[in-house]
Amino acid sequence: MAGSQEQVAVNINGDGSTAASRETFRQAVVNTLERRLFYIPSFKIYRGVAGLYDYGPPGCAVKSNVLAFWRQHFVLEENMLEVDCPCVTPEIVLKASGHVDKFTDLMVKDEKTGTCYRADHLLKDYCKDKLEKDLTLSAEKAAELRHVLAVLDDLSAEELGAKLKEYGITAPDTKNPISDPYPFNLMFQTSIGPSGMSPGYMRPETAQGIFVNFKDLYYYNGNKLPFAAAQIGQAFRNEISPRQGLLRVREFTLAEIEHFVDPDDKSHPKFVDVAMLEFLMFPRNEQMAGESAIPMILGEAVSQGIVNNETLGYFIGRVYLFLTQLGIDKDRLRFRQHLPNEMAHYAADCWDAEIECSYGWIECVGIADRSAYDLGAHSEKSGVPLVAHEKFSEPREVEKLVIVPSKKELGLAFKGNQRMVVEALEAMSEKEALEMKASLESKGEMDFHVCTLGKAVSITKDMVSISMEKKKEHQRVFTPSVIEPSFGVGRIIYCLFEHSFYTRPGKSEDEQLNVFRFPPLVAPIKCTVFPLIKAQKFEDVAKIIAKSLTAAGISHIIDITGTSIGKRYARTDEIGVPFAVTVDSTSSVTIRERDSKEQIRISIDEVATVVKEVTDGQSTWADILWRYPTHSASHVEDE
Amino acid sequence: MAGSQEQVAVNINGDGSTAASRETFRQAVVNTLERRLFYIPSFKIYRGVAGLYDYGPPGCAVKSNVLAFWRQHFVLEENMLEVDCPCVTPEIVLKASGHVDKFTDLMVKDEKTGTCYRADHLLKDYCKDKLEKDLTLSAEKAAELRHVLAVLDDLSAEELGAKLKEYGITAPDTKNPISDPYPFNLMFQTSIGPSGMSPGYMRPETAQGIFVNFKDLYYYNGNKLPFAAAQIGQAFRNEISPRQGLLRVREFTLAEIEHFVDPDDKSHPKFVDVAMLEFLMFPRNEQMAGESAIPMILGEAVSQGIVNNETLGYFIGRVYLFLTQLGIDKDRLRFRQHLPNEMAHYAADCWDAEIECSYGWIECVGIADRSAYDLGAHSEKSGVPLVAHEKFSEPREVEKLVIVPSKKELGLAFKGNQRMVVEALEAMSEKEALEMKASLESKGEMDFHVCTLGKAVSITKDMVSISMEKKKEHQRVFTPSVIEPSFGVGRIIYCLFEHSFYTRPGKSEDEQLNVFRFPPLVAPIKCTVFPLIKAQKFEDVAKIIAKSLTAAGISHIIDITGTSIGKRYARTDEIGVPFAVTVDSTSSVTIRERDSKEQIRISIDEVATVVKEVTDGQSTWADILWRYPTHSASHVEDE
Repeated sequence: MAGSQEQVAVNINGDGSTAASRETFRQAVVNTLERRLFYIPSFKIYRGVAGLYDYGPPGCAVKSNVLAFWRQHFVLEENMLEVDCPCVTPEIVLKASGHVDKFTDLMVKDEKTGTCYRADHLLKDYCKDKLEKDLTLSAEKAAELRHVLAVLDDLSAEELGAKLKEYGITAPDTKNPISDPYPFNLMFQTSIGPSGMSPGYMRPETAQGIFVNFKDLYYYNGNKLPFAAAQIGQAFRNEISPRQGLLRVREFTLAEIEHFVDPDDKSHPKFVDVAMLEFLMFPRNEQMAGESAIPMILGEAVSQGIVNNETLGYFIGRVYLFLTQLGIDKDRLRFRQHLPNEMAHYAADCWDAEIECSYGWIECVGIADRSAYDLGAHSEKSGVPLVAHEKFSEPREVEKLVIVPSKKELGLAFKGNQRMVVEALEAMSEKEALEMKASLESKGEMDFHVCTLGKAVSITKDMVSISMEKKKEHQRVFTPSVIEPSFGVGRIIYCLFEHSFYTRPGKSEDEQLNVFRFPPLVAPIKCTVFPLIKAQKFEDVAKIIAKSLTAAGISHIIDITGTSIGKRYARTDEIGVPFAVTVDSTSSVTIRERDSKEQIRISIDEVATVVKEVTDGQSTWADILWRYPTHSASHVEDE
Repeated sequence: MAGSQEQVAVNINGDGSTAASRETFRQAVVNTLERRLFYIPSFKIYRGVAGLYDYGPPGCAVKSNVLAFWRQHFVLEENMLEVDCPCVTPEIVLKASGHVDKFTDLMVKDEKTGTCYRADHLLKDYCKDKLEKDLTLSAEKAAELRHVLAVLDDLSAEELGAKLKEYGITAPDTKNPISDPYPFNLMFQTSIGPSGMSPGYMRPETAQGIFVNFKDLYYYNGNKLPFAAAQIGQAFRNEISPRQGLLRVREFTLAEIEHFVDPDDKSHPKFVDVAMLEFLMFPRNEQMAGESAIPMILGEAVSQGIVNNETLGYFIGRVYLFLTQLGIDKDRLRFRQHLPNEMAHYAADCWDAEIECSYGWIECVGIADRSAYDLGAHSEKSGVPLVAHEKFSEPREVEKLVIVPSKKELGLAFKGNQRMVVEALEAMSEKEALEMKASLESKGEMDFHVCTLGKAVSITKDMVSISMEKKKEHQRVFTPSVIEPSFGVGRIIYCLFEHSFYTRPGKSEDEQLNVFRFPPLVAPIKCTVFPLIKAQKFEDVAKIIAKSLTAAGISHIIDITGTSIGKRYARTDEIGVPFAVTVDSTSSVTIRERDSKEQIRISIDEVATVVKEVTDGQSTWADILWRYPTHSASHVEDE
C-alpha cells in the first residue's frame, strides 16, 4: 500500500530485539489500549481483581468482529452445528473428563502469611534471575539452571519441591520459608441448588458440553460422520497468581470446534483447498534438534506423515487463513507440534498455533487429534453409548467370542455372589476367555479372580460355555475420533493488537502518533464522519451520511468538535478506524484511508455503499482508488 | 401474505383458551423444540440438572440472530458503548449493589430429608389446589385463598411462615413437617484465587460491570451526557427449585442497557420517532382498578405523565419495535407499569414488557428509571466519585457553607482524637453547622457527638469557624440518573417460539405438519437447497448454489437424500427455514416461501442475491413475487 513506507514500526521482530525494547514496545501498546479503553482492569474502582479484565467499547467491538468472522470462516463454511451450553457444570461431568482429578497446578504457601505462589514460577524466576544477574555463575551451574528451565513443565511435585529446597528458595514477598508443593485445582467451585449437596464448577473449557451431546448431534446430522460441532463461550480458570496481562486470565472466551470422524478414515474432501499453503511449521524433530521453525507446504507435511492426517492438516490450514485474515503477521505465526511428553497419552497428534508477541511465542490455538478419549470417558461414566454406526452395503461374516455363563450352576455354587461372578465372566477379554476355554477343556476347572469379590473362585466346566461363533454383521459400531481446534479468543486479540500497532511522526518533530492497522473486517469502528469546519450545512450533511451508514449496518462516529482535522484523524487512527469521511461541500465528500492517508472524492449518496463494500471484503481500497478520483488535499491532513 | 388463511393456528389467544388447551399447545411446541434440538436439557446423559439448558444448533442460531439484531437495533442505532465484563465478581461489588444482602428467596426445608422448597411456591400450590379441587370450599375461604395468591409476593418471612403453619402445609414429596421460611441467597458463590480468603459470586446481572466503569465511559464519551452503555452476557441465579422450562433457569443470557442522563433533563431528541406508536399499555391505575391493558399512543402516555419521562418512553417504544420485528405478536405483548410496592424505593418508574404465552403473561424486558441509586452506592463504597459535570456558560453565584476546623486548638484539646473530631466537624450537614454556629455565638461552646469516638465532646468558639460564603461556581456536579432496559434473552426466545408455531394439514387427512413462521431475520437457517430428483447434474447445480450462498454469508443446508420433496419441505418448515430452492433444471430453479408455499422461478446465478436481499430486510417476499415469474408446481408440494 502506498505511503506505508513512512510507517515506523517499533522494532519487535526477530532475535535482534532485546528484552528492553520488547518491554518498551509493550508499554506503548498497553498504554494506548488502556487509555482508549480497549480494555480495563475489571472492578478498577475497587482496585481490581488480578486476572480479570473488561473489554471497553473498542475492545468489545473488535471481539465481536473476531467472533463474527470466526462463525463465518468456520461454522458457516463447514456447516458446523453450533451449540450453546451453560458455564455451570455438575461435578460428574468434570469427573468423567478428568478435570476434577487432574486440572491442577502445583502451589506452595508462605508458611507464615499463607500467601500462595505457583511452585514452577518461583523456580523459573530464580533460575532466570541467577542466569541474568549472577556474574560469578560457573559454566556448569549455568548449564544446570538452563536445563531446569527446559524441563520445568515436566517436573513432578516431588522433583519441584526438591529443587526449591536445594536452591533455598523462599517466599518472594517476605523471604519466609515455603511449604512443599501440592496440587491446587484450577476450577472455580460452587454449589448447585440450595442443598449444598450438589457440587459444581464453572467450566474450564466449552468442549465437554459438546461431548455429552454427541448422541443428539449425531442424530441431528442424519447419523452421518464426519461432522463438526462448535461453541463460543466463557471458560474459567482460577489461576494461582495471574501474570502477563491479557494472556493469562481467570475468565476468558473460548471458541471450540469438535470435529467427529471415523478413526479409520481421517481424509478430508476439502484438504486440496489448503494443501498448497506454505507457512512456518515447527515439527517435533526440529524442536528436539534445537533448530528453528521452517516454512513448509502443508500438503507435503501431511504426505510425509509429519502431520498425522488430512483432517488435522485441513484445520491447521484453515486456522492459518483465519489468523492471517484477521491481521496476524504471518512471519510471527508458527505451528508447533507437541513433543511426546507434552501430549496426553490418548492424543494422536497435536499442533499449537503460536503467535510471537512481546511476551515471546504464545499458544493461541490448539489443534489436537484427541482420538476417542472424551467420548469413551463419558460413555463409561454415564452408561450411555456415545458411538457411531457404519452400515455395511452387504452383511460381513465375523468371528465373535460368545460367553454364556450358566446361571443355575453358578447360583448353586456361589449363592449371593452369583451376580458378581456372572459379570466377571462376561467381562473377560478374548484372550482370557480363550485361556479359560483351554483350561476347562483340559483340566475341567480353573481358578478365576473376581475383582468385585476381591478373591479367586473355582470355575468348573458346567458353569460356563465359551465358543467362537461365526456371525453376520450388518454394521460396524465404533467410537469416533475427535479433532479439536480450540481458540483462545482473548490471546488472539491481544497478539492482534501488538501486530497491528505502529507509530508514525506527527506534525511536530518529536511527536509520535499511534495507529492500529486493523483490517476493515476487525476494526472496532469502520468509519468516522467529520465536517471540515464547524458549519450547520456541513453538520447536516454529516448527519445524512451517518444515517445512511446506520441503515447499512456500519458502525461509525461523528466528530463535530471544533478540533483541527489533523487531531481528529490522529484520534481515530489511534483506535484503528480505517476510513474517515470529511465533509467539505454539500454535494461530494472525501474518504481517507488510514494507513496510506490517500483520499478519494465521492458523492454523498455513494458513501455508505462504498464503505460497506470495503468493510464487507467485496472490494479493496485499491479497487476503490481505481474507480473514484483521487483527492489531493495535503492541507486537510496538516491543519 | 397469500395462502396464510390455510394456516391452522393452534388456539392459544385470548381468554377463551383453557388451561388444558394451553397445556396441549405447549406440549406440541416443546416436543417440536426438543425433537429438533432447538434446546436440550443440559448434561442429559447424566440425567441433567434442573434449570440448565443447552441451545442446540437451530436454537443457537436463533439466539445469535436475535443478539445480532439487538446490536443493530440498539447499540449501532444509538451509538451505545458496548462493554464485556467478567461473570466472576468480587464480593465488595455485590455488597455495594445490595445483592449480597437482598438477592434472596424464602426457603423451607423438609425437616427429615433436608429437601429444600421455595416457601411461596408451597403456599401458592396449596391455594391453587384447594381452589381448583376442593368442592366443599366455602365462599369466604375461597375469597381468603384468592387474597393470599394476590399478595403472595409481598409477604414477609414471618407472614409466610404463619400461613404455612395455619394451613398445615407439609413437604410435598414426603408429607414431613417443614422448617420456618428463611432467606436463601440466589447467587452462585465461589472463591477467587487459591487462598480461600476472597469470596466471589457469579454475577446475577450484567449491569454492575457497567456502573463500576461509569467514570471511564463518561470520559470516553467526551464527558458528555446523555450516553448509553450496553452489555450482552451470561448471568446466574441459583434457583431453589426451577420450574417453567426455559422461563426460569439457573444461567441465562442478559442484554442490558444503562442510559445515563441528567436527572434534571430526561427529554429525548428522538422521542418524536416513536411518539405515534400505539400498543397495549397497562398503567398502575388500570391494574389497581382490576381493569385490563388498554391500547395507548405512547406520546400521550408520556404527555399525560403516565410514563414518567421521555427517555423512559423512548425506550418503551424502541423495545416495542424490537420485539414485534423479531416476530412477537403485538396482540400478546403489553407494557405493564410496576405497582408502587413492586418498585425499589429509589426507582422513579418502571415498566415491564410482558409477553403472553402458555404460562401466562411473562416479564421479558424490564425498563426502569433507577434514578441515581447504583452510581451513588458504588461511589460511597469505593470512595471514587461517579459523577457528571455540567459546565456553566458563565459562572453562577451560590451561597456555600464553609467549615474550617482549627487544627491547632483541636489538637491541644483532643490530642490523639483530633483527627476524628476534625472529620466529624467537616462532615456536618448545613443544618447541623448552622445550629452549631448559633450556639457557639450565643453560648461560646456546644456539646457535639462524634460517632467515631462513640461520645460527645465539648466544642468551643475558637475550635472551628463556620460561615456562609458567596462563591462563584463554574459547573454543577451531580450523579446521573440511569434508565435501564434489561432483556431476558432466553425468555424472549421462548415466547417467540410459541408465537411462531402453528400446524397445518399434511398430505394424509389426520397428519398435522409443524411450522415455525420465523421472520427471515430470526430464522436459524435461511435457505435449503434440494435437487428435485436424485441426479448428478442437479446435485452439481445444488452445490454451485450452496457455494454462492456461503460466499454471501447465508446459512443454508443441502438435502440430497432421496426423500420425497414434500417430506423435505415439511422437515425444514418445522425448523422455520423461510426459503427452499428446488433444483429441477440446470439453468433455472424455483424458490418456495415457507408460509404461503408460493414459488418463483429464477436463474441459478441470481439465487444468492435474492435470498440475501430478503433475509437482510432490503426487500420483502412480496417485492420478489412482483419481479419474478410465479412457478405453479402443485406437483412438487404433493410428491
